[in-house]
Amino acid sequence: MKTDLTARFAAFLSPDEILAEAPELLTDQRKRFVSAPDVILKPKSVESVQAVMRYCTQHHIPVIPQGGNTGLCGAAVAEGGVLLNLSRLNRIRAVSTADNSITVEAGAVLQQVQEAAAAADRLFPLSLASEGSCQIGGNIACNAGGLNVLRYGTMRDLVLGLEVVLPDGSLISHLQPLHKNTTGYDLRHLFIGSEGTLGVITAATLKLFARPKTRATAWVGLPDIEAAVGLLSLVQGHFAERLESFELVSRFALDLSAAFSRLQKPVDAEWHVLLELSDALPHDGLPDMLAEFLYRHGFENSVLTQSEQERSDLWTLREHISASQRSLGTSIKHDIAVPVSRVAAFVGACAPALQAAFPGIEIVCFGHLGDGSLHYNTFLPHVLSNDAYAYEDKINTIVYEHILAQGGTIAAEHGIGIIKNHWLPRVRSPEEIALMKAVKAQLDPHGIMNPGKLLPA
Amino acid sequence: MKTDLTARFAAFLSPDEILAEAPELLTDQRKRFVSAPDVILKPKSVESVQAVMRYCTQHHIPVIPQGGNTGLCGAAVAEGGVLLNLSRLNRIRAVSTADNSITVEAGAVLQQVQEAAAAADRLFPLSLASEGSCQIGGNIACNAGGLNVLRYGTMRDLVLGLEVVLPDGSLISHLQPLHKNTTGYDLRHLFIGSEGTLGVITAATLKLFARPKTRATAWVGLPDIEAAVGLLSLVQGHFAERLESFELVSRFALDLSAAFSRLQKPVDAEWHVLLELSDALPHDGLPDMLAEFLYRHGFENSVLTQSEQERSDLWTLREHISASQRSLGTSIKHDIAVPVSRVAAFVGACAPALQAAFPGIEIVCFGHLGDGSLHYNTFLPHVLSNDAYAYEDKINTIVYEHILAQGGTIAAEHGIGIIKNHWLPRVRSPEEIALMKAVKAQLDPHGIMNPGKLLPA
Ligand SMILES: Cc1cc2nc3c(=O)[nH]c(=O)nc-3n(C[C@H](O)[C@H](O)[C@H](O)COP(=O)(O)OP(=O)(O)OC[C@H]3O[C@@H](n4cnc5c(N)ncnc54)[C@H](O)[C@@H]3O)c2cc1C
Ligand SMILES: Cc1cc2nc3c(=O)[nH]c(=O)nc-3n(C[C@H](O)[C@H](O)[C@H](O)COP(=O)(O)OP(=O)(O)OC[C@H]3O[C@@H](n4cnc5c(N)ncnc54)[C@H](O)[C@@H]3O)c2cc1C
Repeated sequence: MKTDLTARFAAFLSPDEILAEAPELLTDQRKRFVSAPDVILKPKSVESVQAVMRYCTQHHIPVIPQGGNTGLCGAAVAEGGVLLNLSRLNRIRAVSTADNSITVEAGAVLQQVQEAAAAADRLFPLSLASEGSCQIGGNIACNAGGLNVLRYGTMRDLVLGLEVVLPDGSLISHLQPLHKNTTGYDLRHLFIGSEGTLGVITAATLKLFARPKTRATAWVGLPDIEAAVGLLSLVQGHFAERLESFELVSRFALDLSAAFSRLQKPVDAEWHVLLELSDALPHDGLPDMLAEFLYRHGFENSVLTQSEQERSDLWTLREHISASQRSLGTSIKHDIAVPVSRVAAFVGACAPALQAAFPGIEIVCFGHLGDGSLHYNTFLPHVLSNDAYAYEDKINTIVYEHILAQGGTIAAEHGIGIIKNHWLPRVRSPEEIALMKAVKAQLDPHGIMNPGKLLPA
Repeated sequence: MKTDLTARFAAFLSPDEILAEAPELLTDQRKRFVSAPDVILKPKSVESVQAVMRYCTQHHIPVIPQGGNTGLCGAAVAEGGVLLNLSRLNRIRAVSTADNSITVEAGAVLQQVQEAAAAADRLFPLSLASEGSCQIGGNIACNAGGLNVLRYGTMRDLVLGLEVVLPDGSLISHLQPLHKNTTGYDLRHLFIGSEGTLGVITAATLKLFARPKTRATAWVGLPDIEAAVGLLSLVQGHFAERLESFELVSRFALDLSAAFSRLQKPVDAEWHVLLELSDALPHDGLPDMLAEFLYRHGFENSVLTQSEQERSDLWTLREHISASQRSLGTSIKHDIAVPVSRVAAFVGACAPALQAAFPGIEIVCFGHLGDGSLHYNTFLPHVLSNDAYAYEDKINTIVYEHILAQGGTIAAEHGIGIIKNHWLPRVRSPEEIALMKAVKAQLDPHGIMNPGKLLPA
């Protein structure tokens, strides 16, 4: 920490807004990156955020916004400058069932927002494994996805309005729950997914939904991915938005997770789908309708859950896949998506290419087939964990080239951060990158907002 | 038409891409504005659009994109320059049930897209009274809304990807149906709602949904708007996304429409709601569930439809409100929205203010209460139709001030065009307008794209 900088902020912030140390904020989730900021600030009010930004613009001091620090691409890592942690701006400002909306500050933890919605008998649908610590501001800045994007969309689809402090300290505030509003270019969507490079999000108005009252859950075994895609299309045509999750699991991923979880495999097959319907109406018949539907369409290698315990076991099998892999060593992970219709082609072509380049490589393939996004985790046996990252670039290149060949994306829901910005010129044209840089230059002429993140150098 | 300009385009376009005359393209829907372009072009291919844009950038010639010419704020009116009509770029490029998506060219008529989706047993939900002639490019450029925004969102929510020709002739193309993709600032949403001022949309990939198989329709009489908002909240909490329409109608609006349509008023009340549920599952019980629900919550002054004829009569009453007003003279219309929870406060305050300023003014108030957007049509009796516009500014000012006081928007779904751009500085801050102008300057440095529209001078 630079003591002189601390003293300068002490002139206009209260003492408890300036942290002497906070080791838990300095190391990122994957323990790959360590921050070394000049000072850590935890503002208690929007006015404090504005004062910080005004000062930093005037003195050209870098500012790195931080939420729950659960991001997976090093986007909240600080090399010098101000680490601006938003945790203290965490009020639920308003809940309205008439407007089906909730207005919360950026530092509110996702789970806290889910609970506030539930207390008003509404659902805030965003759901991630990190929901106990990630924050709304981080969710917006990363355009977070998660488990039920199929039904409710990503964070982008859930934001009605934003309050943002710009680099010069001025405030943009549009927190009215308006469902129709077309008054000039839509700037809200520039901030969503901007990873802290354009301004500091201080609050947001989010959409609420009716809470599900009925569920039906099935596990289906399938010979190949094509069959899973066919099932998805049938279920979507019939059950429509009731389909909430449609998770794909490979045989290898299920084997690992079943052993780790000490649970039986529900069925035997090359590929597996965990699918779940939900309905806001009490509807006792839903599980029977799903069973009859699967039977009628010939998906007989399947199991319907009869109790909450059975349902929870199936979800445990899905959720323990990540943990069960640890025995394989360090994983090179990929946050990718392709059109649903191309998942089979991607998986069919990429695995042989990886195996040719790295004989013996293990691939744990699973993900949200319903929205085309895959976790595609690769392991190099006999490579010491710490050495695995040495092969990262080469593995990424093979995976990303196959993704791009299928019209997919190299960044589905975790963002770009500092680990993928050199790839951006492959997926955005020079005109697009020039426009992004013009937007950045207009809002942040001194380049103080989260420098080095998202945009290519 | 300027013959020299025609000759210059003839050098690189085929003869049938250059129109000698086309009076139907020159007068706008409300017969308020008449275009006087130097030349009218109807390109047959994306390459032709690119060639036109390259040429116009080089020679600083204004370009005014036009779709179905159904816009209501003069945004496709040309004063000189090229009127670039997209009608011939109207192919359906692809429909995919696996991806739940359809890829269409900008000139495809909305109804044609609805039909192509239906042919694949899917729904493209956007629905406007102008659907027989408005085009997808225009719908995107205006961020069109319409009847079922409550359930499916506006056009913005339905676009997965865009293909756009930039002013310099280069092409941005992202037509993959990706449901998760966060790779840099989201530029797609800048073009949606940009009213032809940033580039020419040539194609789009749109979301598809399951088709509704069951409906339940009710007409409910209510003492005041507060009661209607209470009903909305109850229905949304219980029936969730099944609620597709929730239309508010005032006593006066219903009286006019019933007389014009020669139909009985379904119930007697100060305020009326036409609400419709739909479900993709065949579900015979839905109308009974709705009847029981209304009864249980005390909404007894209501009618449930028993046949398709009864349903169609109720919708006729709603849809004929506009036509039935003609006898009142020229209407000063407003495309406004407020948070649902503020509709009653807006209506309660605005009517007395208008009546005080214009004794005898008639107000026909109806709209999509479910998303807070209102048609708020005002008539000055004893004013000759042609004179009504002389009072437009004064009436608008009263209405808009009341809208802004309730946190609403002066442009819900028709856009800004040339009739509202002087209001933009009231609803967007100087920083926001500066950012919009920077985006415009980056893409269109010579200001040739639809000059004078959307942005304030
Ligand atoms: C176990 C686990 C599971 C996960 N699962 C998912 C998943 O399923 N789907 C998914 O999408 N992600 C997932 N993630 C990633 C991560 O949780 C999300 O990206 C989350 O949205 C980050 O929120 P955060 O508050 O932790 O942000 P941080 O990590 O603190 O910051 C992330 C980025 O947002 C910026 N930022 C944070 N707050 C603000 C603000 N107020 N204003 C401006 N910029 C800001 C930062 O500068 C940085 O660029 C997972 C992570 C873990 C550890
Ligand atoms: C009877 C009637 C009912 C209506 N109801 C509704 C309603 O309920 N909801 C609603 O939202 N609107 C409604 N409208 C308004 C209108 O139909 C919509 O705004 C529609 O989206 C306009 O489409 P268009 O193809 O006719 O566009 P046009 O009128 O031709 O153009 C409108 C704007 O879009 C631009 N544009 C058109 N095509 C392109 C392109 N390919 N690339 C770039 N820019 C382009 C133009 O430059 C102009 O700025 C209604 C209109 C009528 C006449």
